[in-house]
Amino acid sequence: MTFEEARAQFPVFERSAYLNAGSSGPLPRAAADAVRARLERDLTEGRSGKAYIEEIFELRERIRGGVAAVLVTSAELVALVDSTTRACQTVVAGLGLGPDDEIVTTDQEHFGLTGQLQGSGARVVVTEADEEALLAAVTPRTRLVAVSHVLWTTGRRLDLARLRRPDGPPLLVDGAQSAGAVGVDLAGADFYTVSAQKWLCGPDPSGALFVRDPDRLRVPLPSVFSQQSHETDGAFVPKDGARRFDSGWIGAPALEGLEAALGVHPEWRYEAAAKTAARCRELLAPLVEVVTPAGHSTLVSFHPPGDPTELVATLAERGVVVRELPGRDLVRASCGWWTSEDDLRRLVDGVASAT
Amino acid sequence: MTFEEARAQFPVFERSAYLNAGSSGPLPRAAADAVRARLERDLTEGRSGKAYIEEIFELRERIRGGVAAVLVTSAELVALVDSTTRACQTVVAGLGLGPDDEIVTTDQEHFGLTGQLQGSGARVVVTEADEEALLAAVTPRTRLVAVSHVLWTTGRRLDLARLRRPDGPPLLVDGAQSAGAVGVDLAGADFYTVSAQKWLCGPDPSGALFVRDPDRLRVPLPSVFSQQSHETDGAFVPKDGARRFDSGWIGAPALEGLEAALGVHPEWRYEAAAKTAARCRELLAPLVEVVTPAGHSTLVSFHPPGDPTELVATLAERGVVVRELPGRDLVRASCGWWTSEDDLRRLVDGVASAT
Repeated sequence: MTFEEARAQFPVFERSAYLNAGSSGPLPRAAADAVRARLERDLTEGRSGKAYIEEIFELRERIRGGVAAVLVTSAELVALVDSTTRACQTVVAGLGLGPDDEIVTTDQEHFGLTGQLQGSGARVVVTEADEEALLAAVTPRTRLVAVSHVLWTTGRRLDLARLRRPDGPPLLVDGAQSAGAVGVDLAGADFYTVSAQKWLCGPDPSGALFVRDPDRLRVPLPSVFSQQSHETDGAFVPKDGARRFDSGWIGAPALEGLEAALGVHPEWRYEAAAKTAARCRELLAPLVEVVTPAGHSTLVSFHPPGDPTELVATLAERGVVVRELPGRDLVRASCGWWTSEDDLRRLVDGVASAT
Repeated sequence: MTFEEARAQFPVFERSAYLNAGSSGPLPRAAADAVRARLERDLTEGRSGKAYIEEIFELRERIRGGVAAVLVTSAELVALVDSTTRACQTVVAGLGLGPDDEIVTTDQEHFGLTGQLQGSGARVVVTEADEEALLAAVTPRTRLVAVSHVLWTTGRRLDLARLRRPDGPPLLVDGAQSAGAVGVDLAGADFYTVSAQKWLCGPDPSGALFVRDPDRLRVPLPSVFSQQSHETDGAFVPKDGARRFDSGWIGAPALEGLEAALGVHPEWRYEAAAKTAARCRELLAPLVEVVTPAGHSTLVSFHPPGDPTELVATLAERGVVVRELPGRDLVRASCGWWTSEDDLRRLVDGVASAT
């Protein structure tokens, strides 16, 4: 697949320099077609019956396999959930923490993660987004280290292998800005979340959760997919592997759309995305202060010359879609394997004209 | 709107006697059209930006209002969640129960409810599905009574006003088989769940949660919609009212589909559905043992003459869609305001030919 063929899968690029996959990825035509086709079947054939349910289960397994391939792991260790928020809920609730427990996290996390840490009732210890600082904050009370692989604010990538000590607490990784964007090495991660509507270009919401050792985590928020059998009082035998953490029903149209989206990514995706991000840095560096370290991710965050809200609005008027990171004086461009030199030029021209 | 006009909104009826809204409702053409139109916009315009997010928030508020109208309550007390499973998780986790606490429930509940009761860590006390039995099981340790309004198995409707004693424990009601099917009086319910893909004919999954007193329930599973502001460590100020229990992102196509689905129901829906269910009972009574009490719901459950799995398969071959209730020797027909005399005749002919 050539770059032009690969890029042509996304109608949005005919209209704008869409550089916001960090919020929601560009949607491929194949995914929309798959959603539409299935919707038509749901409409005319109805949404129930034995064959219908069997098809849903098969679709789920194919998607599980597709996500496992992205994470370079086994499908047995992948649960289908609707979001990183849900994935974090599943892990945090499963650990059953209390006020005497501590969770160590960074000061650069998304509320999708930190909200669940608060919800756990444990004490949340916040450090700088730095491996040394995180390790230094671990105490005998630490029950979980919870960080992003790629920070949604600065675009910095953390070294997971370094964060997970053999005798240390388990490591929950928010993979919202990494899965599908950079080649993921699960390294020491005990839990790893996927937001499939971002870099995997799936329908929104969609996502997954990797669980290294499913038998060691409780299932406190079971869905009908969690159990292989259950009693009248709800006591249940969980399914084998990470399927027990599947968070709930996903409609057939969304499943078809997700499967199609997983199929549009070329083999060269990670190399191309990394190159594009490097090129974006190179073009922006003379104009603004780029905060994303080189070679870390597909995000390029920078301090704008003036007001970030205004810059984002001005760029939007020129058909350049980026986002502001509220309260941090940052604007973020998301560079994918689909991003063209022209997209970047339009961004840079827009930033230049605003300075 | 005449019956013919109302029924013509659903293409599935051109093909089959679809009597399984208790699993998934018939999908109206208007909902599918709305999904498709929005999907096309997402495809060509992208899924982000200020205007996009504002539109999503407005859609969510219109849907909240639509669900509130179904429950005859205020939109301030309605949270948008993706399913009854999620709604039950929200309530049970919010109560923060432990092993010394008890939850009283019936022996006729769906795993979507009972799974969460188990997940809570509390002791689950199961009684017959009967108001007297439930009240008799309440002890000083009971922290929650959790029941369906209409039982998904027998179709019996429980008397909520009788179950909620002024000095008694709070009442969580699974409304999966009632909201949109029968005129709901929230009566004594402290929490009431809605599965919008069933009797409200919405996209799957979709749902809602009524919370009578939002300030008295913790928010242990927050989504980005739960907070009006938050700190770096995830500490947050919840939104006013039940919005704080919104369980997460819903894609624009699904929101548009749900809004459209909420608009297809005629004023006469409850009367028509009740009449159709009564007619279904009347036609089936000479052939099989109907277990649903008269006048209780839009479900008609019956003990089939032979094997229930076989009967459901035989009916499916004749284009009659009903479901089996596994392990209970029951077959269930769901009668909606959209059900015709011909649908019922086809069901009864199929059952008769199997006897």
